[in-house]
Amino acid sequence: MKRAVILLSGGLDSAVTLWLAKSEGYELFTLSFDYGQRHKKELEAAAEITKVAGVKEHRLVTINMDQWGGSSLTDKNMEVEDGDVNRTDIPVTYVPARNMVFLSIAASYAEAIDAQNIFIGVSQVDYSGYVDCRESFIKAMENAINQGTVMAAEKNRPITIHAPFIYKTKTEEIKTGAKLGVPFGLTWSCYRGGEKPCGTCDSCLLRAKAFQEAGVVDEGITETGERK
Amino acid sequence: MKRAVILLSGGLDSAVTLWLAKSEGYELFTLSFDYGQRHKKELEAAAEITKVAGVKEHRLVTINMDQWGGSSLTDKNMEVEDGDVNRTDIPVTYVPARNMVFLSIAASYAEAIDAQNIFIGVSQVDYSGYVDCRESFIKAMENAINQGTVMAAEKNRPITIHAPFIYKTKTEEIKTGAKLGVPFGLTWSCYRGGEKPCGTCDSCLLRAKAFQEAGVVDEGITETGERK
Repeated sequence: MKRAVILLSGGLDSAVTLWLAKSEGYELFTLSFDYGQRHKKELEAAAEITKVAGVKEHRLVTINMDQWGGSSLTDKNMEVEDGDVNRTDIPVTYVPARNMVFLSIAASYAEAIDAQNIFIGVSQVDYSGYVDCRESFIKAMENAINQGTVMAAEKNRPITIHAPFIYKTKTEEIKTGAKLGVPFGLTWSCYRGGEKPCGTCDSCLLRAKAFQEAGVVDEGITETGERK
Repeated sequence: MKRAVILLSGGLDSAVTLWLAKSEGYELFTLSFDYGQRHKKELEAAAEITKVAGVKEHRLVTINMDQWGGSSLTDKNMEVEDGDVNRTDIPVTYVPARNMVFLSIAASYAEAIDAQNIFIGVSQVDYSGYVDCRESFIKAMENAINQGTVMAAEKNRPITIHAPFIYKTKTEEIKTGAKLGVPFGLTWSCYRGGEKPCGTCDSCLLRAKAFQEAGVVDEGITETGERK
């Protein structure tokens, strides 16, 4: 059985990506990160999701990248701004080089378990100025992984990074997820650290807009925007 | 003043690299990793070295990559073999994708402090089969960093990875270090987790051989191979 490492934040994109990998017959190895994010609830969500998906192994990596701040997601002295779905500048929630760090660690894990596939749920359509969600970066990273791991560079077992939603909108992704039976109610999107989604940060706004456009009910959220 | 992030393990190569960056006038930001290595003494060495070098800021990142093993450096169920300087296969001390993880985190730190330079003390002459010490990997990683960080991809502030010893032997490196006044006695090379260097692992053997060939006294080690 082909093995795949799936980056699983506990959010919507990574959950749909996990179900897509499952539908393609991969043996599933999931990887989540505690990098000092204020929305640690996503990690509880990730753990719940892995149980339903039937993953072979779930790993949580802890890494203290929050020590140099630079992002409102990890710097407790900064605030998560209210969202604006029409913004064009780079939001303060950008975490420097986050996907590069995650993919590097995924490569280490993949090599340790001899998996030739890594899945990541990024999209460059709705990428919010996060340059590490674009295909040019994903391809560059795949190349670095294949130069920098013994399995790829010396043992002819190259690694592929799959980013199945790179050219899909969140709306299209939700439609795919609905067909695959993703338990949307288990996923967590809100950037703020509360017990319930705030409904006003970028991530909450994008989620609500995409569910509405997809014509899919967000099982996790009541009609008034409260978490069930 | 130009800022540089220097990967500092506490070993010989990274210490000489730090002194080289210092001699070139960079403002020095050092980065060490506790990744579950059994030779944690190198981290004490790194901290001591930063005091002598006069670095602006020293960061220690903790990351539990040892949870998936795959290397005798991090897997406590494996043994560090005695070294063989003539070996051609990949030693069990290889840690999957280690330099990729380190460089990714260095890129995150560099972006957070707006540094356009990252230094790493790898050599592909004495690379012991570690493919992540080769120039092809370093160049691929530099490209990934420049695609995946906002400062490089959107703000026209590209990042350069400097690997000044990539085509140098350890012997040449030690000669350079001696000229620059590197306090070799503070550096730590041994892979085993003891209080004193074992003198028989790959890292101890390569160090001893290189000092001998360079005609430089290893201040850290007595004539019988003991740590002073």
